[in-house]
Amino acid sequence: MKIDDNFYMKLAIDEAWKYQLLTYPNPAVGCTVVKNGEILAIEAHHEAGEAHAEVNALKAAYIKKNPNNLLKMKNSSHEIHDYLIKNHNGFFHDCEVFVTLEPCNHIGKTPACANLLKEIKPKRVIIAHKDINKEASGGCESLNEAGIEISLGCMEKVAYNLLYPFIKWRSGTFIFFKMAMTLNGSIDGNISSNQTLALTHTLRDKIDLMLIGGNTVRSDKPTLDARYIVGRAPNVMIYSKNKVFDNSIPLFKVPNREVIISDDLFKLLDYKFVMVEGTYSLMEILKERIDFVVLLVSPKIRKGLNALNDIDQDFEIIHENMIGKEKIIYLKRK
Amino acid sequence: MKIDDNFYMKLAIDEAWKYQLLTYPNPAVGCTVVKNGEILAIEAHHEAGEAHAEVNALKAAYIKKNPNNLLKMKNSSHEIHDYLIKNHNGFFHDCEVFVTLEPCNHIGKTPACANLLKEIKPKRVIIAHKDINKEASGGCESLNEAGIEISLGCMEKVAYNLLYPFIKWRSGTFIFFKMAMTLNGSIDGNISSNQTLALTHTLRDKIDLMLIGGNTVRSDKPTLDARYIVGRAPNVMIYSKNKVFDNSIPLFKVPNREVIISDDLFKLLDYKFVMVEGTYSLMEILKERIDFVVLLVSPKIRKGLNALNDIDQDFEIIHENMIGKEKIIYLKRK
Ligand SMILES: [Zn+2]
Ligand SMILES: [Zn+2]
Repeated sequence: MKIDDNFYMKLAIDEAWKYQLLTYPNPAVGCTVVKNGEILAIEAHHEAGEAHAEVNALKAAYIKKNPNNLLKMKNSSHEIHDYLIKNHNGFFHDCEVFVTLEPCNHIGKTPACANLLKEIKPKRVIIAHKDINKEASGGCESLNEAGIEISLGCMEKVAYNLLYPFIKWRSGTFIFFKMAMTLNGSIDGNISSNQTLALTHTLRDKIDLMLIGGNTVRSDKPTLDARYIVGRAPNVMIYSKNKVFDNSIPLFKVPNREVIISDDLFKLLDYKFVMVEGTYSLMEILKERIDFVVLLVSPKIRKGLNALNDIDQDFEIIHENMIGKEKIIYLKRK
Repeated sequence: MKIDDNFYMKLAIDEAWKYQLLTYPNPAVGCTVVKNGEILAIEAHHEAGEAHAEVNALKAAYIKKNPNNLLKMKNSSHEIHDYLIKNHNGFFHDCEVFVTLEPCNHIGKTPACANLLKEIKPKRVIIAHKDINKEASGGCESLNEAGIEISLGCMEKVAYNLLYPFIKWRSGTFIFFKMAMTLNGSIDGNISSNQTLALTHTLRDKIDLMLIGGNTVRSDKPTLDARYIVGRAPNVMIYSKNKVFDNSIPLFKVPNREVIISDDLFKLLDYKFVMVEGTYSLMEILKERIDFVVLLVSPKIRKGLNALNDIDQDFEIIHENMIGKEKIIYLKRK
């Protein structure tokens, strides 16, 4: 295996995918810090409002070589920025920083990463993809002016898939179809482990809208909340021509939730981040409007309904992880 | 992400999995070489008779820092051993060598890796799993005597799955069930890409016996050779109570091939390395005799026969890779 820029960038990309979709409205970003050839840190941005990938990675790198340093106790992005700027003492001058997205250049909820990098002056910053966010961009120029060597475009295409939800969030609507199944495609019964259920509830807590089919609501009588993670229940659009539903179905009783009953799918475009659950015919109806299919696969074979059997579609596998003992596969329509 | 011994060992394990089953009768082994914290090489054993993982990795590490060195031209295991022993000049004294299996200690088709390591004296050798092959074992003791620090048992359980086929080859029969399907479990039509077909033919070239069902032979009239890689066609056992077959079926015309028609599955135990193809009812009949299920998954959804629908079985995912645009999943029955 070749140990080159791509190798270090791929580690950053894989780390970032662990938080894909969970960073909304921010992009999922990963960062690897290499000092004199030694990998010191591989970290990612975890959640909007928390430290960016670069900050997490620079902190972890510094602590790796200074394990008892005070920096350990600093958790907010501001504190870490301040501490590193004051105390780096040239530590990063022989470091290479691999980041999947151009470091941000504006001060938002957290201070600008480009500014932090300018102050600590790493030997080189390797960037997979340019920022598409005009407010935050300019990081490359800013680092260049500070005399830091920049390598742009390393694994750009792979990083593009990582960045894709953010690109859609910025300019329109990102819609993903989430389903759980067994190895042989059966969707019947209790398929998912507690870990994948927790992921589903975490996703529900993040999205702007959940789309579900009227028949599923009528037959399953679901709650569709995020109780496993004590999270916010998402607003729900029930796709149905028939607008009459039994009010005792639990999803209608969740407080602070909006429920729309409609068969007008253009309404989805009023939202930025939409998850489609449990309505397999909608995969065919929504077609190329679906950006990602997120498949949670439980490693078992079961007899049961194969909900996708009438769909004829090719995909590209853009990433896969393990979630405990199960798999998560991210697919893009071809 | 923690950058520790496990991290470097996992890189070696993942590299070795790329050659899983293809190293028969040798174990699949991977090796990472780290010099002063810098990863110089991640390599694996590719095929019986070729250089062991340690030799490939030590060579790659040396060349990484001496890119124009003569060692580049040395390809046989003997040449690389000789060259490194004569020319290492202390290069490896500050190296850590992570290897998924205890370095071999006997001279077989290739010289002993333990001997090479003793001569070049790395700072530390980290080993995931002890060798179970009595002829080759003793590597740890040998390195210890030479004063090299040994860490044994790093990621031992994960490495055990990698080693598992070898353990079965040594003491009995390793049987794996190979199948190709779409994302939703359909097996109809042309599912596989040329890359996964090439893998299937490479596996056929390695195995001692292919097991296939009589009905599949009668309906598909297959050839079951390894023509895509210009390899050896495997011997075939057709599982069938009815011993009468149309002699014009191509598989009977392949030269230098033995074909057994039998319904006695105990015959499988006369072989060391058996692949079961295309006979889904056999998964139920063979049950716990199947060591691995190797699933080739094409990222598309298709209507079609779901051959596994009558099987009720839980698995552990022990590894997964991409083969080009498709997936390969290695499963163990639970
Ligand atoms: Zn930033
Ligand atoms: Zn060896």
